[in-house]
Amino acid sequence: MSDPSVISFAGGVPNPATFPAEALAAAAGRAIRERRDEALQYGPTAGLPALRERIARRLSEGGIATDPADLCLTTGSQQALDLIARVLVDPGDGVVVESPAYVGALACFRARQARFLSVSRDDSRVDAGGLKETVRRFRARGGTARVLYTIPTFQNPSGWTLSAAGRAELLACAAELDLFVVEDDPYGEVHFEAPPPAPLAALDRDGRVAYLGSFSKTLSAGVRCGFVRAPRELLEKIELAKQAADLCSSSLDQWTLALYFEGNDYDAHLSSVRAFYGRQKAVLLEAIAASWPSEVAVSDPAGGLFCWARLPEGEDADPLLARSLEEKKVAFIPGAAFFPEETPDNRRYFRMTFAKETPERLREGAKRLGELLA
Amino acid sequence: MSDPSVISFAGGVPNPATFPAEALAAAAGRAIRERRDEALQYGPTAGLPALRERIARRLSEGGIATDPADLCLTTGSQQALDLIARVLVDPGDGVVVESPAYVGALACFRARQARFLSVSRDDSRVDAGGLKETVRRFRARGGTARVLYTIPTFQNPSGWTLSAAGRAELLACAAELDLFVVEDDPYGEVHFEAPPPAPLAALDRDGRVAYLGSFSKTLSAGVRCGFVRAPRELLEKIELAKQAADLCSSSLDQWTLALYFEGNDYDAHLSSVRAFYGRQKAVLLEAIAASWPSEVAVSDPAGGLFCWARLPEGEDADPLLARSLEEKKVAFIPGAAFFPEETPDNRRYFRMTFAKETPERLREGAKRLGELLA
Repeated sequence: MSDPSVISFAGGVPNPATFPAEALAAAAGRAIRERRDEALQYGPTAGLPALRERIARRLSEGGIATDPADLCLTTGSQQALDLIARVLVDPGDGVVVESPAYVGALACFRARQARFLSVSRDDSRVDAGGLKETVRRFRARGGTARVLYTIPTFQNPSGWTLSAAGRAELLACAAELDLFVVEDDPYGEVHFEAPPPAPLAALDRDGRVAYLGSFSKTLSAGVRCGFVRAPRELLEKIELAKQAADLCSSSLDQWTLALYFEGNDYDAHLSSVRAFYGRQKAVLLEAIAASWPSEVAVSDPAGGLFCWARLPEGEDADPLLARSLEEKKVAFIPGAAFFPEETPDNRRYFRMTFAKETPERLREGAKRLGELLA
Repeated sequence: MSDPSVISFAGGVPNPATFPAEALAAAAGRAIRERRDEALQYGPTAGLPALRERIARRLSEGGIATDPADLCLTTGSQQALDLIARVLVDPGDGVVVESPAYVGALACFRARQARFLSVSRDDSRVDAGGLKETVRRFRARGGTARVLYTIPTFQNPSGWTLSAAGRAELLACAAELDLFVVEDDPYGEVHFEAPPPAPLAALDRDGRVAYLGSFSKTLSAGVRCGFVRAPRELLEKIELAKQAADLCSSSLDQWTLALYFEGNDYDAHLSSVRAFYGRQKAVLLEAIAASWPSEVAVSDPAGGLFCWARLPEGEDADPLLARSLEEKKVAFIPGAAFFPEETPDNRRYFRMTFAKETPERLREGAKRLGELLA
């Protein structure tokens, strides 16, 4: 798959060394041996009750009051996104997405033949004024726009996080425009210092937010277990769509996580995951600071897996990648794919993950790329 | 979930006592401990190469020449069905389905707003003449019909199996009408005596058949691992749709099966599964023969999990179920839901599984139901 001689800032996957393999292996073995009749059998479409309870409790402690019946477990949070797109988006509908945005979400909405209404954001706010104008203009021409999709925290691809004020503003704006908000939060637990501001779902007072979570960055990406917390009426539709989509997610995966939580200290594990990625980010950003020209701006995320780099005006990350692979054996992802629309300016960006490489290779990769950028 | 005092012929799930729990537990443990970097990580959307190779080899040995690149692994074969419906069926399209048919397939096609063109079948043939007439009439009115869906072998709900001649006839008919055939085969491995006639996919000479398989009835339904073998052009579209749907299926599930196959004799295991369900069916049918009135016809399946009963003309299985639960504490599934269309005659049918209850309870349940039917 990947050439080990290439130092890779590409890819969007976690580092499996952070996963609690021994504890998960023990949990999986127990799941099959002690819970055979459930772990090897079809389960409820909405997910294993014991795991829904565990997740509901954790969300409630984190400020999102949740009953197990508010949750549907999914095959990763990607499936939750896809089901929501199926249920809420009709062909031709406008969907508000950030610019840049998670490519996997754009794919789900494209599959529904949505039209993108893009709103620009930075490291604390979305452009609320621009959002209102875009939606109103679209609606004035007869368009239907009901959904806004966002990763407020440690965003993929940018690493940016909406501030508390930025969140309040976004939610007020959604209320004013009567938009339903899909809050995708796969990285929120992976904060390097203080926890991020409260999720939109914790601020929501009128059932306007669906909250998507995942264990893919903290426990395992291959144990495919995400979830969506949504208002009941929407949840019923999601569950019906999931029934047709795959009957239920892996019972083995769900039981493995349920028994992992029963027998292990998840918070202690999270601390080690946070420390790991925090160190990785620090190594990469220090190496970048030491050798990159100041005209290349790089985001400094407070969590998650990604940095976002911007080349000087007029530059293009695509040919840079070709040269980087050829001359320096360093990979990254050009930013154009992350934008709902193509513009020359969007070609200035590229995404780097600090998740996968060793500190030595992070330093070496940054140095080599710095030589090219100089 | 279920009241243990009720003897249940309802439900459509396998008996977990038939699953090789110890071997799967060992495989899952090894998967996580020895293959951590893959078993706990995102995998290729099309599925684990080692498992695709294993499945391709087995299909090839069974007469369906298959390369691993012809396969996409899915979250149960239900997901394959759903992806195919997404890729091949547009809103308003006609989809040819058997009458009766698997409800989970009807759900996928309904979600695509398909219109059902139903073709009646019995225990050896589909009504090819009726099929041609129905499709031609639909097309003459401007309708688009491209897909035919079938479970040729040990069908859910009927237990019926198309004969070799019936299969050839169906395939010739599909060619004449230029229909693409979706062959769903979750029960084919569970034959009680001789293997069933060759699958449609083994007879197909012009890339007209997608073949769906599953391990849900033989190894585990909770380890969600199905697959679709399809012509490359279609497979690419399926893979793209799957990427948006859930990125990939559980890597833990896939590695667990791959290592199970590596270290265990699957054919020996299948023999025990076949013997188990064969005995169960024999017990149920003997008990039915002993006490049910001859006016109630019951299918005698050569494999799978289901019998299909037909009440005398004018009878209705819905009120019968209500009385059966109330007076006899016996459950079954009224047949109406399995038909693409509602007719009074369809209400005469009901489905019984012999998978879940002990022989004693199968006998007792049949006896009680017989008292009600007398």
